[in-house]
Amino acid sequence: GGPGSDGLLTRRAHELLAAADVVVVDRLAPRGVVDALPASVRVVDVGKAPGRHAVPQDGINDLLVEEALAGHAVVRLKGGDPYVFGRGGEERLACEARGIAVEVVPGVTSAVSVPAAAGIPLTHRGVARGFTVVTGHDELPSVPAGSDHTVVLLMGVVRLAGSAEALVARGRSASCPVAVVERGFLPDQRVTLGTLGDIAAVAA
Amino acid sequence: GGPGSDGLLTRRAHELLAAADVVVVDRLAPRGVVDALPASVRVVDVGKAPGRHAVPQDGINDLLVEEALAGHAVVRLKGGDPYVFGRGGEERLACEARGIAVEVVPGVTSAVSVPAAAGIPLTHRGVARGFTVVTGHDELPSVPAGSDHTVVLLMGVVRLAGSAEALVARGRSASCPVAVVERGFLPDQRVTLGTLGDIAAVAA
Repeated sequence: GGPGSDGLLTRRAHELLAAADVVVVDRLAPRGVVDALPASVRVVDVGKAPGRHAVPQDGINDLLVEEALAGHAVVRLKGGDPYVFGRGGEERLACEARGIAVEVVPGVTSAVSVPAAAGIPLTHRGVARGFTVVTGHDELPSVPAGSDHTVVLLMGVVRLAGSAEALVARGRSASCPVAVVERGFLPDQRVTLGTLGDIAAVAA
Repeated sequence: GGPGSDGLLTRRAHELLAAADVVVVDRLAPRGVVDALPASVRVVDVGKAPGRHAVPQDGINDLLVEEALAGHAVVRLKGGDPYVFGRGGEERLACEARGIAVEVVPGVTSAVSVPAAAGIPLTHRGVARGFTVVTGHDELPSVPAGSDHTVVLLMGVVRLAGSAEALVARGRSASCPVAVVERGFLPDQRVTLGTLGDIAAVAA
């Protein structure tokens, strides 16, 4: 589904949506695309939203299998890319275990596109020659410490100060520039610029 | 432009192509999309192809600036994502230095989508909880050694054995599984499966 902007869905995704009987969406699927589906398409929302229960992953897997075995053409529309923290691998395995053919359509992952929304290339000649993507909502895993490598922390705001301190403790310079991008591509997108040192100082 | 499959261009990219006067393409831009452009669109190929000269980066920057200053709507169509080893950042800076408005449309990067074409999620619960993307055509930069982290080597075939040896020397298990994916999403896509040890042994 890409980062939430309707225009960042691929043409292949649109083709499959146009042929779907059932579309299973979650909270981060692009709303404009979902709302534009014809009334004949059954939309099932399994997404997490603040204050209400989401369908657990096993339940999503079972739903996809049941709908497919009932003969329906099922599209599972996920925000971002199904294979970048999207649990698409688990859903595919559950379907294939029941003999259901699956096509995985890669998407525009937020790990790359949300920095782009803030004008930031993940690689840039003379600045960064690689990048690492991890989630920032748990304790920070091992990431390269070199200043010529971009680190992307998905869902990184809640533990931001702890992540900044961990990066400095592991050898990143306190002057390393940081951009915090929230709600990328949405009308209320917010970008905050600073350094690792700034963030660690706020935390102290 | 995505990984080369026509269906993996975004709708926003199609919208901009439909409004373009000039489209500047390189070798990895999706050919089907380029060939389908109306005859009124001027296509400029600046791409590298084996055995012939490509336009150097400065020349591409100058071309984009000149065409835009001449009043043309210019689309720069790159393979993959413009900000993942695509030098989109340099092209944007060159244009903005001359006061030209630039919109960057993120794409489906081959770093994520080509593994997907081979059925491989970059993250998977209990297997991999992050990933690092570097180019494999130079000496291998620092990458996380943990077995719960996927490493993607773009353009990695030429130096494959050296990269495998370097990963083992830096602490990756020789039994770490490896997939070599060539020409992802194209009709002659090839996937070779093995381990780091297999590849290092071939090299020895």
